[in-house]
Amino acid sequence: MTTESDARDELIDLAADFYDQFAAGKIPEMTLPTRTKSNIEYDEASGVWTYGDRTSTRSANSVRGARKLLKAAYTIEFLANQLDDDRSSTLRELYYLSESWDNDEAQFKSQDESNDLVEDLEIVTGVTREDFHMRPEESGAKVMGPLEIREQTNRGDREIHCQLDVGQGGYQIPNNPDTIEFLDNDAEFVLCVETGGMRDRLVENGFDEAHDALVVHLGGQPARATRRLTKRFRDELDLPVVVFTDGDPWSYRIYGSVAYGSIKSAHLSKYLATPEARFIGIQPEDIVEYDLPSDPLSDSDINALESELEDPRFQTDYWEEQIELQLDIGKKSEQQSLASRGLDFVTDTYLPERLGEMGVL
Amino acid sequence: MTTESDARDELIDLAADFYDQFAAGKIPEMTLPTRTKSNIEYDEASGVWTYGDRTSTRSANSVRGARKLLKAAYTIEFLANQLDDDRSSTLRELYYLSESWDNDEAQFKSQDESNDLVEDLEIVTGVTREDFHMRPEESGAKVMGPLEIREQTNRGDREIHCQLDVGQGGYQIPNNPDTIEFLDNDAEFVLCVETGGMRDRLVENGFDEAHDALVVHLGGQPARATRRLTKRFRDELDLPVVVFTDGDPWSYRIYGSVAYGSIKSAHLSKYLATPEARFIGIQPEDIVEYDLPSDPLSDSDINALESELEDPRFQTDYWEEQIELQLDIGKKSEQQSLASRGLDFVTDTYLPERLGEMGVL
Repeated sequence: MTTESDARDELIDLAADFYDQFAAGKIPEMTLPTRTKSNIEYDEASGVWTYGDRTSTRSANSVRGARKLLKAAYTIEFLANQLDDDRSSTLRELYYLSESWDNDEAQFKSQDESNDLVEDLEIVTGVTREDFHMRPEESGAKVMGPLEIREQTNRGDREIHCQLDVGQGGYQIPNNPDTIEFLDNDAEFVLCVETGGMRDRLVENGFDEAHDALVVHLGGQPARATRRLTKRFRDELDLPVVVFTDGDPWSYRIYGSVAYGSIKSAHLSKYLATPEARFIGIQPEDIVEYDLPSDPLSDSDINALESELEDPRFQTDYWEEQIELQLDIGKKSEQQSLASRGLDFVTDTYLPERLGEMGVL
Repeated sequence: MTTESDARDELIDLAADFYDQFAAGKIPEMTLPTRTKSNIEYDEASGVWTYGDRTSTRSANSVRGARKLLKAAYTIEFLANQLDDDRSSTLRELYYLSESWDNDEAQFKSQDESNDLVEDLEIVTGVTREDFHMRPEESGAKVMGPLEIREQTNRGDREIHCQLDVGQGGYQIPNNPDTIEFLDNDAEFVLCVETGGMRDRLVENGFDEAHDALVVHLGGQPARATRRLTKRFRDELDLPVVVFTDGDPWSYRIYGSVAYGSIKSAHLSKYLATPEARFIGIQPEDIVEYDLPSDPLSDSDINALESELEDPRFQTDYWEEQIELQLDIGKKSEQQSLASRGLDFVTDTYLPERLGEMGVL
């Protein structure tokens, strides 16, 4: 976690670099890791995606390059002022806001351009977007469980117990979960859940109370805020993390983004990914063992499974066995298909059995 | 709002009807409004979509019809037990759960079938799905503003002030907002906001505090829970409701679903739609007046606008003028484009001006 003044210092240092290069009579430039797929590596040691050694240089020796550095300088000034004023903004606001800048050449022509520049600044400074006070468009999901937090909001601190002080919907994760301080907890583990329907089932059945679980709703492909908070639960509270999704290749990718990070945000893996996170199910093995209602795999499911077999993140004995089994049986099952054994089967039988096997319970 | 025992009674009445028909030696049947587009009418008086007078009969005089009534009977039993036990479930769980029923013929073959049956039961009994304790898959969005509520959760009542007791993310609307009781409020009006980025801007700028607004995040096409709560704000707290979206035809439909209901849920318009809700912007007029950054209309935008001109919900002088203007200028603007005038423009200038024109402030 970077403080606001650290983030500001990193930005100012970058602008100072441009200045020093000018002062020394050099053409200013900025060096970045090359952001192509071929320069992204799965780091075995840390278990997440990172950039390789290749770098690219943005130099002011062309009009195009000079314009990029000009835009970077204006953006740095905007972000430094925003941090000074303790304000925040979204990527989309930055794009529109550039229309008010006094130099037409500094204005962004598309939102892709401003998004990419902010990613560049994250990479060069080692500071995350959230610490620049750039809010994501999508908010995080919600948490229910035996945890008391203090959230620093822009209208004062709020102390919230994530079971006793919230409604059935739980505690809404703020855009920047680094504003949260963990005060007290009785949690034994973290259970990240893909679908809203299953999240609501676990809460209705009191699973978080019965097993001292922090139930985190992922809501499909999880937002940055949700992934960041999950990582903090692991690192700061030393809790095991398990991920509970549908049993199909798209859901394994959701697990992958929680555990290993994504290619797009490889520079953020250390901040967002939880390599210790384990997959609880629905496993292809479960489809067989519990005789779950299933649908046949479609062609695109089969292609996705085959491409996962080639993906270094899934090249473990466990995943190879499960994926081969799934291709073999040709079936997929949703997590809510456990309801075919009754509404309490998931909380009374399935999850306790799986958590026992995994050594979590 | 129907109580649980009312909902149960309505279901049992329906089953009793089948029984009485059998007892009288008649072939049992169930009569429903015809659910085709041609039997849906815009009701000028109430300002929402409703079914017309045509009805269809489901009779057990064919195997197909008999099977439908059998499924209805099993579903009624499941729902009545669920209400007795004070449990709830999702539509998807109902579909899977039917696999555990002792009669194969009663089991659903697809989720469409079980979804349709629950809609039929809503229509015939006049009870909403939420009152059967069928939870939607998608949860509602969130509220921030000067309102204190009591939510009845399945683990006890929670009293929550939607500014003082919540984090920056606000109060998470539960799946069934009829579990909420309004305790106290200083609210002057309700502002429903399409995008998360704009919702966060308003909260960061303290718009809810400065103007005693209940800021409701819609999050794109709003969930049933969000629409229901908005309607309750209007009806029970007597608050004006305004809807703030992007300035394009897809966003006008979001406004339409809040204000007039949708064709798909015409039987629920009285429960979900807020015909008094007014559109605050982005108006095509605003794109011109505030010289907002814009994108050209695409062909599909133009088609959507033209079809809105044919839509009875939009056949008012106001909408005809705005839509004609938009087709004329050929532009659309996002709500966040107001940031081109600075991050405070929306809360210091745009919204106060528009609310003044509309007589809300």
